[in-house]
Amino acid sequence: MGALVEELSEHGYSGTSMERIATRAGVAKTTLYRRWGGVDQIVVELFTDATATAIPVPDTGSFEGDLRELTRSAVGLLLDPLARAIFDIVVGEAVHNPVARTALTQFFDRRVRGGAIVVERAVQRGEVPADTDPAEVIRQAGAPYFARIYVTGDPISLQDADRAASVTALAAREGLFPLQATSPAG
Amino acid sequence: MGALVEELSEHGYSGTSMERIATRAGVAKTTLYRRWGGVDQIVVELFTDATATAIPVPDTGSFEGDLRELTRSAVGLLLDPLARAIFDIVVGEAVHNPVARTALTQFFDRRVRGGAIVVERAVQRGEVPADTDPAEVIRQAGAPYFARIYVTGDPISLQDADRAASVTALAAREGLFPLQATSPAG
Repeated sequence: MGALVEELSEHGYSGTSMERIATRAGVAKTTLYRRWGGVDQIVVELFTDATATAIPVPDTGSFEGDLRELTRSAVGLLLDPLARAIFDIVVGEAVHNPVARTALTQFFDRRVRGGAIVVERAVQRGEVPADTDPAEVIRQAGAPYFARIYVTGDPISLQDADRAASVTALAAREGLFPLQATSPAG
Repeated sequence: MGALVEELSEHGYSGTSMERIATRAGVAKTTLYRRWGGVDQIVVELFTDATATAIPVPDTGSFEGDLRELTRSAVGLLLDPLARAIFDIVVGEAVHNPVARTALTQFFDRRVRGGAIVVERAVQRGEVPADTDPAEVIRQAGAPYFARIYVTGDPISLQDADRAASVTALAAREGLFPLQATSPAG
């Protein structure tokens, strides 16, 4: 898989063909097509592999401590050159490619599942209001370092993870992430 | 310029050539090259034009009110289909193209200039600590809606602008955005 990432890094998403990947991997192109169907699917699998490493749900005893573990694990992932290269490709591609878009959404969904447990515990401890929206908490916690990388173009560090956790915990305690009323399920 | 954006939207950044642009614009390719040098420069000019519209520095009388004006103007821009299309191209391209990267950084720098005045007034009113970092405030205020669009893939609305302003104002009042000690200028 490392060779495929090198291929993608060298030639970019649009310059990478199944043929080039097959040559580099030393297998027949038809073998790749049988397994993955296309470059999109390979990148999505790489991305999913790189980001699906079990994120242990933190349990530090405080909401802010738990959030800090979550943001530090995410920033740690983004500081890994291989994971970062895949993230860059997927984020750059997601603006016009639905397959990449779906991979990012699924990554986010996995993070929200862990976040929901953290929020639930914080509610039980009385740290945050009972109607706190876990998805909104995770969006807010992750937004600063992703925006640094992909919009303003700033470096990231664990300090950004810690500040994101502090800002999010403070805002959640103040009730700024209420669940929105949704229409009843059909 | 609208025709150029259509061209970019239809064929994507990598599928757009000076030749195609020249044909659509009904001018000689050499004319385009003389003025812009390449597709990168045209997109950067489009982006700069679309985002350089004077952002009046808000003066609502409160820090949160001023931040809300800033976040609402940014979300308003991102809700405009033409500006959004250009943003999408530039963000998608910036992960591997230094020219696009620079355009985004300059966009952010312009926002920080307005933000610095807003922070300065808030310091004078005693709303936020004197060492509040305007760049960090603007990064934090913008992060949620950019992350929604480009990472988690969520829709944005003025509600996101208002929440981003509330969260940022709260965190700034609590002193979570201190200027970092920097090494003295050479």
